[in-house]
Amino acid sequence: MAGEEARQARKGPGRPREERVTRAVLDAVVELVAESGMSALTMDAVAGRAGVSKPAMYRRWATKQDLVIAAAESRIGALVVPDMGDFRAELRVVLTARMEAYRLPGVGRLMAGVIGAASEAGAERGAYRDYTARVMGETRTVLERGIARGDVRADVDVPAAATLVAASLVFRMVGEHGTPDEALVESVVDLVGRAVAARP
Amino acid sequence: MAGEEARQARKGPGRPREERVTRAVLDAVVELVAESGMSALTMDAVAGRAGVSKPAMYRRWATKQDLVIAAAESRIGALVVPDMGDFRAELRVVLTARMEAYRLPGVGRLMAGVIGAASEAGAERGAYRDYTARVMGETRTVLERGIARGDVRADVDVPAAATLVAASLVFRMVGEHGTPDEALVESVVDLVGRAVAARP
Repeated sequence: MAGEEARQARKGPGRPREERVTRAVLDAVVELVAESGMSALTMDAVAGRAGVSKPAMYRRWATKQDLVIAAAESRIGALVVPDMGDFRAELRVVLTARMEAYRLPGVGRLMAGVIGAASEAGAERGAYRDYTARVMGETRTVLERGIARGDVRADVDVPAAATLVAASLVFRMVGEHGTPDEALVESVVDLVGRAVAARP
Repeated sequence: MAGEEARQARKGPGRPREERVTRAVLDAVVELVAESGMSALTMDAVAGRAGVSKPAMYRRWATKQDLVIAAAESRIGALVVPDMGDFRAELRVVLTARMEAYRLPGVGRLMAGVIGAASEAGAERGAYRDYTARVMGETRTVLERGIARGDVRADVDVPAAATLVAASLVFRMVGEHGTPDEALVESVVDLVGRAVAARP
């Protein structure tokens, strides 16, 4: 609690309310998508569910696309993985965190909806690409740390390997409509671990 | 031409017209999605573009979802790869065929739209899952042939490896909004080749 008070003091008195509003709105988005899908999602429905005025929502998220990306990022966002001295161990941390998030109610539907919405006419493709880059960032860091450490080959195509890691659980979910589980995580750790290993 | 005539005779005289109608409708879907995105796609617009009556369309595709899956399958469908005596060579054939198809106009948008639509309330998830299984089928065959031949490890998790293969180019396209190219194909062949190799 002392930490929480210190954080509030640092950010000023208006901040905790801001955070409560943000959380209420993003939770409402995930709940509504879980219940009825992306096409039924409207700014009105979100405002009603969250108990927030529409102007307060529009101040934070100018478009429905901004809002659904923010909701996705509240569940699947940037990660930080400590140096564990072992590439496979760090990769397992990344994939386990994603797997747990993908299994939350509504998240599969939300991710599929974000992918669909980002390809629509008028979508802000840059905002979506930036989000994906944030999601994939720590995997690149883990690969590059492995190269520096010596347990990942120096000649690995890091962007391609990061794509394989990010793609695997997402595709199992939104492409195959399966549930990413511990067994898939272990198989991907093993497959990608062999794929990039410095020594076989 | 002799082969074409024999095929027409085998299928009966009504068949070529059926095929022309099917092709016109599925081409119209891909064109319209390329131009305006999935949310603008209506049965009316497709019928108008293809010059086909709506009853004729509904006889073949009961719903818009059936129609977009059929359009996706006309570009990204089942493959047959001959035994080339080498897993990597066969994997390269699979990925190159997919890469070329993904680069056709409108296909990226169509695939993203199919993913989004399949997660909507009321979507026929079974039809979509069956489509994905057909797309991934040949990759499983190639992996199993490699195991039988001996250049793929017998203990590979075949479904997980097939997910990695299918996921990589799709995610580069609909997740990262990048263009799958020969360099990515070669990197995925190399990464997956190492991941499943019987002997390093």
